Amino acid sequence: MTFDAIDVIRTKRDGGQLSAEQIRWLIDAHTRGVVPDEQVSALLMAVFFRGMAPGELAAWTQAMIDSGERKDLSSLGRPTADKHSTGGVGDKTTLPLAPLVAACGVAVPQLSGRGLGHTGGTLDKLESIPGWRADVHEEAYLAQLREVGAVICAAGHDLAPADKKLYALRDVTGTVESIPLIASSIMSKKIAEGADALVLDVKTGSGAFMKDPASSRELARTMVGLGEAAGVRTVALVTAMDRPLGRAAGNAVEVAESVEVLAGGGPADLVELTLALAREMLAGVGRDDVDPADALRDGRAMDVWRRMVTAQGGDPDAPLPQPAERHVVTAPATGTLTRLDAYALGVATWRLGAGRARKEDPVSAAAGITWTATVGERVTEGQPLLELQTDDAGRIPRALEALEGAVGVGTADEPLPLVLERVTDA
Amino acid sequence: MTFDAIDVIRTKRDGGQLSAEQIRWLIDAHTRGVVPDEQVSALLMAVFFRGMAPGELAAWTQAMIDSGERKDLSSLGRPTADKHSTGGVGDKTTLPLAPLVAACGVAVPQLSGRGLGHTGGTLDKLESIPGWRADVHEEAYLAQLREVGAVICAAGHDLAPADKKLYALRDVTGTVESIPLIASSIMSKKIAEGADALVLDVKTGSGAFMKDPASSRELARTMVGLGEAAGVRTVALVTAMDRPLGRAAGNAVEVAESVEVLAGGGPADLVELTLALAREMLAGVGRDDVDPADALRDGRAMDVWRRMVTAQGGDPDAPLPQPAERHVVTAPATGTLTRLDAYALGVATWRLGAGRARKEDPVSAAAGITWTATVGERVTEGQPLLELQTDDAGRIPRALEALEGAVGVGTADEPLPLVLERVTDA
Repeated sequence: MTFDAIDVIRTKRDGGQLSAEQIRWLIDAHTRGVVPDEQVSALLMAVFFRGMAPGELAAWTQAMIDSGERKDLSSLGRPTADKHSTGGVGDKTTLPLAPLVAACGVAVPQLSGRGLGHTGGTLDKLESIPGWRADVHEEAYLAQLREVGAVICAAGHDLAPADKKLYALRDVTGTVESIPLIASSIMSKKIAEGADALVLDVKTGSGAFMKDPASSRELARTMVGLGEAAGVRTVALVTAMDRPLGRAAGNAVEVAESVEVLAGGGPADLVELTLALAREMLAGVGRDDVDPADALRDGRAMDVWRRMVTAQGGDPDAPLPQPAERHVVTAPATGTLTRLDAYALGVATWRLGAGRARKEDPVSAAAGITWTATVGERVTEGQPLLELQTDDAGRIPRALEALEGAVGVGTADEPLPLVLERVTDA
Repeated sequence: MTFDAIDVIRTKRDGGQLSAEQIRWLIDAHTRGVVPDEQVSALLMAVFFRGMAPGELAAWTQAMIDSGERKDLSSLGRPTADKHSTGGVGDKTTLPLAPLVAACGVAVPQLSGRGLGHTGGTLDKLESIPGWRADVHEEAYLAQLREVGAVICAAGHDLAPADKKLYALRDVTGTVESIPLIASSIMSKKIAEGADALVLDVKTGSGAFMKDPASSRELARTMVGLGEAAGVRTVALVTAMDRPLGRAAGNAVEVAESVEVLAGGGPADLVELTLALAREMLAGVGRDDVDPADALRDGRAMDVWRRMVTAQGGDPDAPLPQPAERHVVTAPATGTLTRLDAYALGVATWRLGAGRARKEDPVSAAAGITWTATVGERVTEGQPLLELQTDDAGRIPRALEALEGAVGVGTADEPLPLVLERVTDA
């Protein structure tokens, strides 16, 4: 069926609802280049102002899924679960989580992206492992899922291609910050991946895309609704991103910290979140009886990690890249660390070379920041608090600029709990 | 100065005000093709929702004027006044008005357009005069203004070229219906024409672009403010377009009716509006002392008309094109005509061949509708009320369809006054 794009734009502009047929036609016609970008960008801005009703959004998401292929993982003969984080500073959770859940008998097909802006990308982090490759072909992908149980790799072009085009357009037209558009972009790709269950880690705070709990909760609810409507068991955790996660942000430093967790150690907050997400993934496929903490303790998760890295050409025993330059920032006073601003640390990490400004830029594997204490912990004036790491000492001054005002020491308020809320479809 | 288009879009999207520098840059960069249509269409949709503050709108309009040339008519050595109508059914006022005001000693530079949709275009109407040409070169234009005092012709490409590009974009992106965008589009062209005074005829009702008096008044106020800010004495009349103007809609039939007015006759409403607009144009250049009714009575306006038509190659004595087919619709009852719907008559006229669906379509000179009574007048059941005129009898059934429910006969309410309001900057 063919519709008039101007009618579609006007209907949304004037607060009306689009039919599923109109939405299907529009997404398909835009993907094929029949409806031009200038009409779609006007529609996206109208959606920014008017939102979308649940039925419209489900149709929009389905149309984006249908622009490519929804993968069928039933041949694995084992339940599958996937996780998505909306992105935060120091959020390396995918790295320990995927092998951990796989070690508990649930396959984890984790198609990931690269970083752009102040939050890092999972693939960028893993590429600091010598030899590791992000590109895995279709057959190798299924074989690795079958044999190792977990794969973290780059998404192919057949996964929701409509989203690729829409996202590029949103990026230049000021229409990124719209909850229905964010939700449909994430969920179209995640649903197309074909997992039985999905856990969403929706970050909230300065270092997150959503700065306040109310909009994070709304995004979580919207995404959970879309997942369930598409037949995927979906739960979301709204988690704190006012401070960074763990004790390291960057690339190689995050891999090292992930390995610590897999070895049964690691920072308490990172372990807590990894286990919370693992329990949700297991519960999503009916494995509430399994305690993932056991698989960390007894080395099964580490075994899967090593096999997963090896399967993609990486050497799990190779030393990770080290920075040429290190610069220590000390604690400004004695007391409780009340502030360690996630956004400031993210920007500083990016400026040290860990992130990219444009898609085609390279990232530095060794660049990053580590810290010795997080919010709620005691620090002593003059103790080393942050360590800036980079290949290029010339980057340090601008990183320090980003950190101005990022650290606060004072009388302790109780910090925000790590997991603020659990959002389900019920 | 260079800005980031995404910042400009986001600022407007979030309800902020754009600086004059941002606006100047954006309009210029779009006109030069540096900022692409998809970014501008998102901005236009944001303007649709957020509006523009008076300062923003003045800067926007000035930037559109500055994309071309603002004409200088001071060499004429005589005051100049111009009129713009937002468009209505049967609105041929420009035809008698331009020669009438010129006959009173004020030069009238009237750059006009062609019709698209249900309202006719001034140039289309005049082209029904055998030999008449809409295109007048720059020198001939000034010479005609000097020697005849009035010229009605097509606008050149150098008049607010930014508007040409923006309007084409608005047309396909559902962003036409925005008062600041409408006002700046009209006023950039009218101010660039270089007249000392400007009178705006803002129509209101079913046949008008603005259907209700409140939005017509808002558009009038916005345009008057823009004109005065640019140093042009500007007044607006909000006038009734619930019923069509005069007794004829189409092309040749509107020329014939205009000639009746110039001969001292013509329908009362058309004469009333022509004189009201002429008085405003004269007052705008300080000629309150002149009564334009005298120039209709004594034939001076007709003289200017004949010279104006002749100067552009037309033969004022040539018979006008006649339709091959006529179809009479009779009054359905005896009583007062309470309804003669302007929009329905406009659509019917268009379907008979008088208007075009696409810019490149031709129009029929002979197609149109005439009527024997207007709202507030007595009709008798069975008397001829409407006459449909066309070159192609096959067009009549769909024109009649458009007229269903367009005529109402009953007990008289007082019809809307022709001139509802006079809007000035004061």
